[in-house]
Amino acid sequence: MPTDAYSQALQSLSDLGPLRVWSLLVTVFGDLAPDQPLNGPTLSAIMGEIGIKPEASRVALHRLRSDGWVSSAKQGRNSLHSLTAKGRSDSDAARGRIYGGGQATEAVAILMQGNTELDPTRFAQIASRLFLCSSTEPLPSDAMRLTPDSLPPWLGSQIETEGMRDAYKSLHAVLTDISEELDQDMTPVQTAALRVLIVHAWRRLTLKHPDLPRTAHSPDWRGHDCRALVQTLLERYPRPALDAIKPA
Amino acid sequence: MPTDAYSQALQSLSDLGPLRVWSLLVTVFGDLAPDQPLNGPTLSAIMGEIGIKPEASRVALHRLRSDGWVSSAKQGRNSLHSLTAKGRSDSDAARGRIYGGGQATEAVAILMQGNTELDPTRFAQIASRLFLCSSTEPLPSDAMRLTPDSLPPWLGSQIETEGMRDAYKSLHAVLTDISEELDQDMTPVQTAALRVLIVHAWRRLTLKHPDLPRTAHSPDWRGHDCRALVQTLLERYPRPALDAIKPA
Repeated sequence: MPTDAYSQALQSLSDLGPLRVWSLLVTVFGDLAPDQPLNGPTLSAIMGEIGIKPEASRVALHRLRSDGWVSSAKQGRNSLHSLTAKGRSDSDAARGRIYGGGQATEAVAILMQGNTELDPTRFAQIASRLFLCSSTEPLPSDAMRLTPDSLPPWLGSQIETEGMRDAYKSLHAVLTDISEELDQDMTPVQTAALRVLIVHAWRRLTLKHPDLPRTAHSPDWRGHDCRALVQTLLERYPRPALDAIKPA
Repeated sequence: MPTDAYSQALQSLSDLGPLRVWSLLVTVFGDLAPDQPLNGPTLSAIMGEIGIKPEASRVALHRLRSDGWVSSAKQGRNSLHSLTAKGRSDSDAARGRIYGGGQATEAVAILMQGNTELDPTRFAQIASRLFLCSSTEPLPSDAMRLTPDSLPPWLGSQIETEGMRDAYKSLHAVLTDISEELDQDMTPVQTAALRVLIVHAWRRLTLKHPDLPRTAHSPDWRGHDCRALVQTLLERYPRPALDAIKPA
């Protein structure tokens, strides 16, 4: 890593995939301001630190307002941006999947009566009409619930895509580097930017598939290792107070 | 029923489907002579009682000898026909399915790694790669065993064919009639013929599909009711001694 391990960390995290600004804003609110407003300058400081231009942030905020996800109010010369009730509810719904321990869940299979499409973020399709999901997942009413005696080694490759396996592999490499190399002091806005990019990269992957035990996956699936690293890093770099981020 | 309930019973059982004589002989040996030889005149008396011509029995016996299933030996002017070791072993293997209680079994589902054909007499296919079988069934080595929490009402129609449902309905009607109408005294050869036709009609159906609990089937599946009636009737008309059947 170069001398500036922090810049390298931000770069590597950003390079993991194209950043959609509105989606990044969802992470910013969810991680830093789930329960309080973000004022304009603070938000601009964080987005600027990540390398997002002010105009791009404005467009993304506009979109989130149109979707009824964020509301903005004037406060003197600045704006105050807050999650709406809908935004907070969506954000809270994903919280367990993003920040939770996850790994203790058991898997069950369900068979549908006919050919039905189920939400792939909750149900991994194994075969026609057959899906695997967490045992705590609420099931469709006509589903036949089947408890596996054990999960065979060939199962993982049937519920994973190569794209997701590769994406987790890349994220795992980046998080491992950060965890090993990043030891410099960071300012509050740097900490905020780092957290946001870590959570964002993780959230983009983990919300795309059901939360299944490690044994349901193939040995080179890094999803569970990434979860552990994300938790370690978020504990090491706790969420800074918003007032501390605010530019003077 | 006509006055002669016995003749009517034989006719109704014979009418359930075309009788293949070699297959009927398998039932005769399995039910009446699994452990001792049948002499020619006794066998002819039984087959004649069922309405099978001597020439047809001879051809069928020839086929079973070619298949290594029966061996015949001269005894004076008559022949003695016995199951070979192979014949006895095949016959014994089916015995539990034909005469057993059956109904206490639990069902499990198995998922195969790839598209595999499994023996339909042991595994009922529900979906691509997914099968239902008795919980006591030995499983293929790469199968993923899944225990159903419960069996949904729509399952039966997916593992049954209309043909089998109709065949059990017809058999059930015939067995019910016999059980209610037949109360006359029968000679040993009549008892033998009745038993053979009952077992044969039952065996032709029950060996074609796995032994699954009643709850795995649709409400109008008469398989389990037929099993109960077969058991009742076989107890009511016990296997006669072969010597008693033998013509004078």
